[in-house]
Amino acid sequence: MSARVLIVGSGLIGTSVGLALRATGTEVSLTDIDPDFLDMAVEAGAGEAWHSELPDPDIVVVAVPPRLVADEVAHALQRWPGAVVTDVASVKGSIVADVDRRSGPAAARFIGGHPMAGREVAGPSAAVADLFRDRPWVLTPTHLTEPQWMETVLELVASTGAIPIELDPGDHDRAVALTSHAPQVLASLLAGRLNHADPEQVLVSGQGLRDTVRIAGSDPVLWSEILAANAGAVVDELRCLAGDLQRVIGDLEAGGDAARGGAYRAVEEGRRGVARLPGKHGAAADRYRAVRVAVPDEPGALAGLFAAVAAAGVNLEDVRIEHALGRPTGLVELSVAPRRAPVLSEALQAAGWSLRP
Amino acid sequence: MSARVLIVGSGLIGTSVGLALRATGTEVSLTDIDPDFLDMAVEAGAGEAWHSELPDPDIVVVAVPPRLVADEVAHALQRWPGAVVTDVASVKGSIVADVDRRSGPAAARFIGGHPMAGREVAGPSAAVADLFRDRPWVLTPTHLTEPQWMETVLELVASTGAIPIELDPGDHDRAVALTSHAPQVLASLLAGRLNHADPEQVLVSGQGLRDTVRIAGSDPVLWSEILAANAGAVVDELRCLAGDLQRVIGDLEAGGDAARGGAYRAVEEGRRGVARLPGKHGAAADRYRAVRVAVPDEPGALAGLFAAVAAAGVNLEDVRIEHALGRPTGLVELSVAPRRAPVLSEALQAAGWSLRP
Repeated sequence: MSARVLIVGSGLIGTSVGLALRATGTEVSLTDIDPDFLDMAVEAGAGEAWHSELPDPDIVVVAVPPRLVADEVAHALQRWPGAVVTDVASVKGSIVADVDRRSGPAAARFIGGHPMAGREVAGPSAAVADLFRDRPWVLTPTHLTEPQWMETVLELVASTGAIPIELDPGDHDRAVALTSHAPQVLASLLAGRLNHADPEQVLVSGQGLRDTVRIAGSDPVLWSEILAANAGAVVDELRCLAGDLQRVIGDLEAGGDAARGGAYRAVEEGRRGVARLPGKHGAAADRYRAVRVAVPDEPGALAGLFAAVAAAGVNLEDVRIEHALGRPTGLVELSVAPRRAPVLSEALQAAGWSLRP
Repeated sequence: MSARVLIVGSGLIGTSVGLALRATGTEVSLTDIDPDFLDMAVEAGAGEAWHSELPDPDIVVVAVPPRLVADEVAHALQRWPGAVVTDVASVKGSIVADVDRRSGPAAARFIGGHPMAGREVAGPSAAVADLFRDRPWVLTPTHLTEPQWMETVLELVASTGAIPIELDPGDHDRAVALTSHAPQVLASLLAGRLNHADPEQVLVSGQGLRDTVRIAGSDPVLWSEILAANAGAVVDELRCLAGDLQRVIGDLEAGGDAARGGAYRAVEEGRRGVARLPGKHGAAADRYRAVRVAVPDEPGALAGLFAAVAAAGVNLEDVRIEHALGRPTGLVELSVAPRRAPVLSEALQAAGWSLRP
């Protein structure tokens, strides 16, 4: 990119953006209120520390904590009247509205952004140049946005290797409520119920529960901020789920055919819904077939299994390991293209591996 | 085992029990209303087809579909007055009550059972001798149960390699409602909401949603039977969850500190709950540390990674592969004992692997 980029906030995301852009030769400068963070980002090669002798930036990327974003965006729009400004916060409607209200016509130079990458770890030390590669990066232009600014930000996103997805700010917030925030709430509530169980009751839990509540291990401080920031869309989504839940409860209470019918409809609807999730290469997830293998609990056993898969010349689409109480052998589920499943099964059995139903 | 075992029902579970017992030299005979199933089970080596010249069985394992279990148990108790009878159905309270009511004093010879293994595939062709090895197998003796019968059934369970867990029939049903049936309902409802989303909204889903709704791909016919059979305990559990959900909705609607506080409490409770799940060796799941590695999307790449892990001499506790829209590189999360994490990280980096935050 020929544009000069200023990154405000040298945490994990800001520093990773800098590293990605520097890898394409783009001129990048950085700031941070924490001089140590800034030093680390510069030392990592994410760009140079911003100073007033530098030419004005063409693009400002605001990568500060969510509650500070609107302030920093308004400040950047005012200070750099020739620059387009974007951010990386995970909630967009309130920020876009706030910037519109405060910045007037200058808001035409702000385009909200949300790269769907990164982890709950903070700080530049975790930054990597390809954090965004092939990840969705949502951009939320509005009717105020001028096309030239949108093109510039699209070029920035493309430079990081991310895949831009355009959404209305409200649609973005509804999308993350549906696909991220409501699942977090349900997983947390479900896991919270385990606090009321006897140890023997918890012992019978299998892989299904484990997968369903995995994200319940998330950081409560971070998530209380996220859920509160997107409260409107999250409440709308949770209300729909509460209605669906009441319907299932009513059907099960009615017993007999009503119970079976209601349960059938709920599970069938869910099966249709999960089939809409994109698979590894954008394909529907049910395009694969699973081959299940028993793997002894010994160092190198998994390496041996994967060597056998490679020797069979079959490409793995996915791998999952099942868990059960105290089990010293692992059950490994290898997902492959359907027509490769018989090939893989035969090759693994011939190599002495024990397959499972 | 010196006892003679009769298995009623030669599907996946019945045939696998037969294979496991035959491997220890136990005398096993089988029946099935479907002569093809019976032939397949016998041919697989699960035992001989039962016929009237055989001596009476000492143990009868009823492994028929759930709705037929109570009938078959009552029939077996009457026909074999010297035998202890057990079953393998996934709901216990109603079956135990039904048998008590119908069989009078003979019910002292029935002990409900639920091996926590097997898949949603039916039929003897999928059976394997070690299906139950190191898996929980719940037994539900009551105050009527005589200790000698319990000892016999415990010996049977031990012969299959399973780990027996004793629970009251009602406690069993509450345990599976909590750890299996309610999670299925929530995962299905959450996935069902995806049917109401635009394709662009579904595009932003990440690994969190994918894990949370994985079990939503389950068979609706099977699950409508399971949920209806355990309706009482499932409704109790879902009512508690509905109450928890209303509380979160109310807190988020209140906004500000109430929203943040309510969301914090829900996520924190969930974090405490998920920590109660047993880990691979019965340890709490958070005893491990994750090392994240970027793996190119090439045949053999995973084999190379696992070979590098084996070369480092580090034993893997778990493996997870992350997914994101259209991404051609995989992000693999390797879980290891905390003190081994730095060793593994260093070895992988030295071998040219790219680590991720």
